[in-house]
Amino acid sequence: MPFLPVAPLPDDILQSRIAYDPRASLAAPYVPLAAAFLAGRDTPRDALERGLHAMQQGEPSVRAFVVSDAAAARLLADAATARWAAGRPLSPVDGMPFAVKDMIETIDFATEMNSPLYAGWHARRDAAAVWALRQAGAVIVGKTVTTEFACGNSGPTRNPYDSARTPGGSSSGSAAAVGAGMVALALGTQTQASTLRPASYCGAYALKPSHDALHTGGVTPLSPTQDHLGLIGASLEDVWSSASAIARRAGGTPPHPGLQGPAHVPEARRPRALVRLDMRGWGETDAPSRAAFEEAVAAIARAGVAIIDRRGDPEVEALEQEIVAGSEYSYDIFSWEAQWPLRSYADHGLDRVGKRIHELLDHTARMTPEGYRAALASREGLRRQVEALRARADGFLALCSSGPAIVGHDYTGSRSYPTPWTMVAGPAFALPLLAVDGLPLGLQLAGFRDRDAEACGVARWIRDLLLPDSL
Amino acid sequence: MPFLPVAPLPDDILQSRIAYDPRASLAAPYVPLAAAFLAGRDTPRDALERGLHAMQQGEPSVRAFVVSDAAAARLLADAATARWAAGRPLSPVDGMPFAVKDMIETIDFATEMNSPLYAGWHARRDAAAVWALRQAGAVIVGKTVTTEFACGNSGPTRNPYDSARTPGGSSSGSAAAVGAGMVALALGTQTQASTLRPASYCGAYALKPSHDALHTGGVTPLSPTQDHLGLIGASLEDVWSSASAIARRAGGTPPHPGLQGPAHVPEARRPRALVRLDMRGWGETDAPSRAAFEEAVAAIARAGVAIIDRRGDPEVEALEQEIVAGSEYSYDIFSWEAQWPLRSYADHGLDRVGKRIHELLDHTARMTPEGYRAALASREGLRRQVEALRARADGFLALCSSGPAIVGHDYTGSRSYPTPWTMVAGPAFALPLLAVDGLPLGLQLAGFRDRDAEACGVARWIRDLLLPDSL
Repeated sequence: MPFLPVAPLPDDILQSRIAYDPRASLAAPYVPLAAAFLAGRDTPRDALERGLHAMQQGEPSVRAFVVSDAAAARLLADAATARWAAGRPLSPVDGMPFAVKDMIETIDFATEMNSPLYAGWHARRDAAAVWALRQAGAVIVGKTVTTEFACGNSGPTRNPYDSARTPGGSSSGSAAAVGAGMVALALGTQTQASTLRPASYCGAYALKPSHDALHTGGVTPLSPTQDHLGLIGASLEDVWSSASAIARRAGGTPPHPGLQGPAHVPEARRPRALVRLDMRGWGETDAPSRAAFEEAVAAIARAGVAIIDRRGDPEVEALEQEIVAGSEYSYDIFSWEAQWPLRSYADHGLDRVGKRIHELLDHTARMTPEGYRAALASREGLRRQVEALRARADGFLALCSSGPAIVGHDYTGSRSYPTPWTMVAGPAFALPLLAVDGLPLGLQLAGFRDRDAEACGVARWIRDLLLPDSL
Repeated sequence: MPFLPVAPLPDDILQSRIAYDPRASLAAPYVPLAAAFLAGRDTPRDALERGLHAMQQGEPSVRAFVVSDAAAARLLADAATARWAAGRPLSPVDGMPFAVKDMIETIDFATEMNSPLYAGWHARRDAAAVWALRQAGAVIVGKTVTTEFACGNSGPTRNPYDSARTPGGSSSGSAAAVGAGMVALALGTQTQASTLRPASYCGAYALKPSHDALHTGGVTPLSPTQDHLGLIGASLEDVWSSASAIARRAGGTPPHPGLQGPAHVPEARRPRALVRLDMRGWGETDAPSRAAFEEAVAAIARAGVAIIDRRGDPEVEALEQEIVAGSEYSYDIFSWEAQWPLRSYADHGLDRVGKRIHELLDHTARMTPEGYRAALASREGLRRQVEALRARADGFLALCSSGPAIVGHDYTGSRSYPTPWTMVAGPAFALPLLAVDGLPLGLQLAGFRDRDAEACGVARWIRDLLLPDSL
């Protein structure tokens, strides 16, 4: 199969900037095109070609892909085109162009994890989610840039809305590729903030599902009790239908039977009440981003939804405090569990493994098994606090990041907003409905564990309210 | 590194047979040599050379190894020899020659899983347990034969005590290599019966630890809620010290903090009472094997241990019945969870994947997610029944296999005796203390979940009772 490796580019690219408008973003939804495919007004092959055109235009500055194969994708898209023309698509995502974070195994493309230790390395299997998406007819386009082992050195990817800024990480290339309209969906991972943060920075929708609700087989493990498969998509419809397509074929990580819900995005569902959370990120958030968030919350309240927050509510105040405390023990859990395989990699020598990974292992060296157990117990307490709010609310509202993408390509941004729901293990959606200084900023709608479809219904209702003519 | 691939041998080897005597087996314990190493009467290098000699003599008929590297092992053994001579071994297993089932990733040797799909495939990391053993100073000798993906076609390995018989599976080469005295320890896996059964057939000790008590990172997954790392060793001391060395360095599979206990085999511990279990295997067991088991049970009873069994004990009778029922839902859980990665492999075509794997996938095709959930619930019930006996007993006694190794090399034997404790998730030891018709037969001592050290103390007491001059 003729692969097209991405040649290294000089670091002298001129800054390119495009103003973000949630109503007219660069992203290219696919699942919403179904009616056009069935009516013959559009085809999966044409959708692929539009994405390949966006790659041709955008890749020199965005650098989202490690490797891609347009020729193979065209063959697959043509087969999907024939199925839609015959009225017999394999699934709602049949023919959907998708990309795969380079932490996730694929049988055709190398899996290099942005590490010299994995240069040219090939798995001999597809990760469960990749296998499932192929079975559902989706068209793999290539592998996207990750930070080193999803926690170390940053890659070459730049933000599609401002090449001077980070795309976020660690699913850097996945978010940038979707944000730039190159693919409708990209698989990512989230062990701390790695799906919601880059989606927020790149103007993409995303779902970090309930823990283990989508099978993580073939995703290189870091911290198994916090590792999640993440879906970054051009629309809520792309994200949800992809999650459902994976769950129906591969299920969850055993013993989780897999995410439940319909094949298409659930009906919009107006919540009775939502809990508005500051999390640790509020103190880091700039004034225009705070204002954009307050405006969205006010619009939701005006539509008749009760907003519960820490002011005057001791239960929410206690949760806010535990979330702040949790940012410490989350990192403890993460670094303790990630000792294997990271310590094994570090044995190869300091120069083969980046600084952040050595810092992480230094942190672990100061930990004890008792400290790890205590952190797990604290996390259980946080989960109980969240569950207790089920009687009063239908979800949680926060930002996805403490502002739009920051300038620079080394630091991929604060993890304060996405990490809490990684710990809580419930579903969290990134909704790219806000624009600040012409840059995207994601609203976070989080839900209760294993109620992913209900959370998606609420996310859809919010999307429809704030972006009424989106589809 | 100069590897020595094993050349394919003609299938016309004459039958070789050696009578098994638990008091003078072929196995070559290592950890018990510590005093001799410290006194300069023996060295790790000499221990390695004795194992290499056993390989040279035995491999033409046993075929335990896929690949080995004597030169690299000698360098490592010399370094260990120097540490022992200086009185500063890294651990009780420093210098111990060990082998690794070819389902387990190693950074130096290929990992081929007895499948043409993995011919020549190299991981770029050591499995957590391999990494930990190397850190502890143990000396890797090579990779041992597995059945195809630990559940399909059998490999070329033959029983070291009778080349006409199976070594058992799926950890075929690991058990044969230890049984034949080639290495003191070999890593295996157990998802149904794959560690205890071959250990029983080959005259080796073994431990299937509590579920997740030893880190399974880098072990190719089949059924994560039933996959266990298994240790097959030349003595109880080798097995226990290896388990401890792994747990101290790599811990358990997160969130399990790892097997607890001392670095050396725990003190012998006479149990108050043991539950004697027939399991489903009793009906399959031949008369001489039954007699050997009854004799061992009688000796234990004469030493003052109360033996509780199904006769007149409704609680044990109910447990026996649930164990028989469990043999069905265990296979359901196994096959459901193993769909990934097996279904992905089967996509490569019928001829690349063996018959047993196709049968397994056919079984899964008749299952439903609801059936899977029901099987998990039944397994929880079985676990509660076992736990309830903690008030009355200190362990469980059964055979490891329904007789000595059977004739032939295709079928690796019944899984009836080892599978129940795979489901229960508690520790189970294979003790090669019985001989039937000049062939080895293992006694199984099983314990309560996460009480591995206590079970080992009981196992040691039984070993000392039945084999008083063993060390």
